[in-house]
Amino acid sequence: MKKDRDRIKVIPLGGLDEIGKNLSAIEYKNEIVVIDCGLKFPEDEMLGIDVVIPDVSYLIKNKDKVKGIFLTHGHEDHIGALPYVLRELNIPVYGTKLTLGIVENRLKETGLLSSANLQRVNPKDIIKLDNLAIEFIRTSHSIADSAAIAVHTPLGIILHTGDFKIDYTPIDEQVGDLARFAELGKKGVVLMLADSTNVERPGYTMSERTVGETFESIFAKAQGRIIVATFATNVHRIEQIVRASIKFGRKVAVSGRSMENIVTVASELGYLDYEEGTLIGIDDIKKYPNEMITIITTGSQGEPMSALSRMASSDHKKVSIVEGDMVIISATPIPGNEKPVSKVINQLSKLGANVIYEALADVHVSGHACQEELKLMHTLVKPKFFMPVHGEYRMLKQHTDLAVRLGMPRENIIIAENGDVIEITKDSIKKSGSVIAGQVFVDGLGVGDVGNIVLRDRRHLSQDGIVTVVVTISREGGKVVAGPDIISRGFVYVRESEDLMEEARVIVRDSLRECEENSITEWATIKSKIKEVLRLFLYEKTKRKPMILPIIMEV
Amino acid sequence: MKKDRDRIKVIPLGGLDEIGKNLSAIEYKNEIVVIDCGLKFPEDEMLGIDVVIPDVSYLIKNKDKVKGIFLTHGHEDHIGALPYVLRELNIPVYGTKLTLGIVENRLKETGLLSSANLQRVNPKDIIKLDNLAIEFIRTSHSIADSAAIAVHTPLGIILHTGDFKIDYTPIDEQVGDLARFAELGKKGVVLMLADSTNVERPGYTMSERTVGETFESIFAKAQGRIIVATFATNVHRIEQIVRASIKFGRKVAVSGRSMENIVTVASELGYLDYEEGTLIGIDDIKKYPNEMITIITTGSQGEPMSALSRMASSDHKKVSIVEGDMVIISATPIPGNEKPVSKVINQLSKLGANVIYEALADVHVSGHACQEELKLMHTLVKPKFFMPVHGEYRMLKQHTDLAVRLGMPRENIIIAENGDVIEITKDSIKKSGSVIAGQVFVDGLGVGDVGNIVLRDRRHLSQDGIVTVVVTISREGGKVVAGPDIISRGFVYVRESEDLMEEARVIVRDSLRECEENSITEWATIKSKIKEVLRLFLYEKTKRKPMILPIIMEV
Repeated sequence: MKKDRDRIKVIPLGGLDEIGKNLSAIEYKNEIVVIDCGLKFPEDEMLGIDVVIPDVSYLIKNKDKVKGIFLTHGHEDHIGALPYVLRELNIPVYGTKLTLGIVENRLKETGLLSSANLQRVNPKDIIKLDNLAIEFIRTSHSIADSAAIAVHTPLGIILHTGDFKIDYTPIDEQVGDLARFAELGKKGVVLMLADSTNVERPGYTMSERTVGETFESIFAKAQGRIIVATFATNVHRIEQIVRASIKFGRKVAVSGRSMENIVTVASELGYLDYEEGTLIGIDDIKKYPNEMITIITTGSQGEPMSALSRMASSDHKKVSIVEGDMVIISATPIPGNEKPVSKVINQLSKLGANVIYEALADVHVSGHACQEELKLMHTLVKPKFFMPVHGEYRMLKQHTDLAVRLGMPRENIIIAENGDVIEITKDSIKKSGSVIAGQVFVDGLGVGDVGNIVLRDRRHLSQDGIVTVVVTISREGGKVVAGPDIISRGFVYVRESEDLMEEARVIVRDSLRECEENSITEWATIKSKIKEVLRLFLYEKTKRKPMILPIIMEV
Repeated sequence: MKKDRDRIKVIPLGGLDEIGKNLSAIEYKNEIVVIDCGLKFPEDEMLGIDVVIPDVSYLIKNKDKVKGIFLTHGHEDHIGALPYVLRELNIPVYGTKLTLGIVENRLKETGLLSSANLQRVNPKDIIKLDNLAIEFIRTSHSIADSAAIAVHTPLGIILHTGDFKIDYTPIDEQVGDLARFAELGKKGVVLMLADSTNVERPGYTMSERTVGETFESIFAKAQGRIIVATFATNVHRIEQIVRASIKFGRKVAVSGRSMENIVTVASELGYLDYEEGTLIGIDDIKKYPNEMITIITTGSQGEPMSALSRMASSDHKKVSIVEGDMVIISATPIPGNEKPVSKVINQLSKLGANVIYEALADVHVSGHACQEELKLMHTLVKPKFFMPVHGEYRMLKQHTDLAVRLGMPRENIIIAENGDVIEITKDSIKKSGSVIAGQVFVDGLGVGDVGNIVLRDRRHLSQDGIVTVVVTISREGGKVVAGPDIISRGFVYVRESEDLMEEARVIVRDSLRECEENSITEWATIKSKIKEVLRLFLYEKTKRKPMILPIIMEV
């Protein structure tokens, strides 16, 4: 029994060696506290996958212990798996006002709102469980109402920073609660889990307010419409766009479903402050001269179906780009999105818009702490043990090195993997085992029904297409009575390759005859013979390896 | 006749609004001069495509006029289409020593070397044609022996900068011939075509020499093996790695086919200078202690089959990464390659290597001119007209703005598109028409046999896979005698979706019965009915849209 009381388990189920699907479990005796419940966007090779969520088998197995999900903020990579996880685990979800406002929206869309148990908290609030107490601490990030989470345990405090930056001049004037971090540091933090996203960047992240200054100088010169694309959840950014618009006598319209949702939620909850009449419907922009219009839109990542992409490809129902429009892309491309963003910039420029993006002006700042801010957090919190989170391995390693440079013994730092069980006592940290963890693919309505075999097939199909061979044989005697027919998709342009396909047909036919002559009737053998001769023939002729799908029908 | 004498046509067939497949034609009376003949690597959506080359129909149509291809340097995006174009157009190819060394290698691989007419030139050489004279002018770039090309015409000089940067302290001490650019400017440059790759970057590109300084400080501290990945063609970079290795008593081994090729070519031609015994075979690295080994390797872009990627995935036959290895990625990810590069860094770090990349140290400099260098070129050359090249539209536009800021009238600048015919007289520039231009996809042995329909199918297949429906019907009476059978690939994991597929089979069967009852015998109608019912059913059940391929056999 004593042994049980003396240790606490930290089990990351997502967010390590990856960007996204953040989810960590903290377990002490009969209680498990879950911090965040995020999704991840698919990697390039995950063809056709919509989103990826963490495997929470461990939580389901221990569902009686799980006391709640505590959310640090309302970004998809921290809340996006809730609609899936809550279906399996009906437990309370704790979060600050805006965070829950966004969660409500998401649960409404998926029909889960009525059954969900959402508990709104304020920064400084403490939720008391049997042995644990969970405290929310205000931080700054690229979304309002973000928080770090301190789990008070009999062994000391476990502090999870969440995503954060240090902003001394935030838009809502609610500076992160640095004093509380210092206080907790004094009380004794046994383990810190901290955001590693920007650990490779030296110096400081600029204040959100600097973007507002850039907006003002751009707005002062603009003579036509101003169209600003940014992350829908960046309420402070939206507020600054609205403020600059008001200052220069512009009405503001909103385009893009997620942007409309957020503006509605944020306005209702009091996160966006503007006079009546500032916001107008997108249909009303024609009622005002161009120089009186600002449009806030989604699509800052070049997402193909987003409002900005549709404007760029002249496909937007309400907004046609005209010469003199000024488009501001107030975001930085997330790694992997560089090319789609560039495409949108090219298209908008060709249509005559003046496009301003990060390479040309300070129209974006990051929401994550750079090295000097991380050093401040480490110095205030002074944790005994440290576990870098939120980052690919390279970042976790850099964050380890940063902590060592600040004087922490390397053996007090652990780079964990998703599924590791990290056991902590007052004076030790170690990996003591592991639980099931991994990625669950969501494709359409299917959650987990697309696995590696399906993805491997999609990759194969995507590279060289498919060649289907169909043959009908007689039940008695196994003679070919129709076919072989060969149909390809994604392999060659059929009209220009009729000779190739006819040759292929002859080769398959000969191979079938050979089977007949040698009395080979085993379908599996016939199929593999067809595959083999066709694969060799097509590779020799084209140096391509389409998927070959032989189908035998029997009559 | 007078009209013909008085104008010159510039026809870009590649390199505009794109990165790669650079190829421009300059036409005067009976002569066409081609500058560069490059390939482009496929965009993400060009599934299965190996490389993209320019459509040179215009040159083939005018082959009697085409006097030669003049190469600015030996990078793939400037020479890579030669093996395809020379098959159609057997014309002389002019280039400097290293450029042709690399071209020879490429032509040897494709069996074209014996029939090729390669003409080696030196900087300052002038090739005289009937009316035109082509001059090579030394520049600096991330490959040795690069050149700008001046085409002397009766209307004045047309200057093509090629890819360039200004390096006052190049490794080979051969500074770009700035004086000649100034001289040509004085003589009268009617049109300049200039590299726009880095036009969005303020300031200057650092000298290649700074990378050598970083290498020295890293090598001084390294205690295990050093593995450096860089672009194979960056001979100066390789030379600096070799120099630092010699200084710190290390032997140098080379891994990766293209790196081995370049080191061989560059050594033979005298571009790499080292004592006998410095280079060792990769098999011999085990004969020396780790601290005496440097390995130069390919894979700086995270290419999946490259030597570095194989080391990172513990898949390299000769090199296993061990704790204490230092890996330097001496390159910056080309847009689109960020994620594969990151993956390699993560994998190497996990294996215990200390990985140094651009975010952490100055281990790379660009080969392209930033804004201040572009200003210098514009100022020296003082062209009457200007056409930005080598860049996406956004860059061409920024380059236009830069020229305007330097005092050039905006109407003297033309942003052309591939295929535009730009007509120049002594005092005018205008688009006078257009010729066929575009992208030709190379996939395996096929050049141009994969078009948009094939790619559209590959994209469709890649997202949701394929569902094939086969049914055999009787020639007389049109009765179903076998099937329908449904086989899917890349759609769902079959074993877990047996019910779904059985339901689908029943739905198709019912639909076929309905056809029978209504005496519908037209195959096209039956097929489209099958497609329709199946599409609706599968979308309702899965929210996915696999390709549906109905096949009817007749017996």
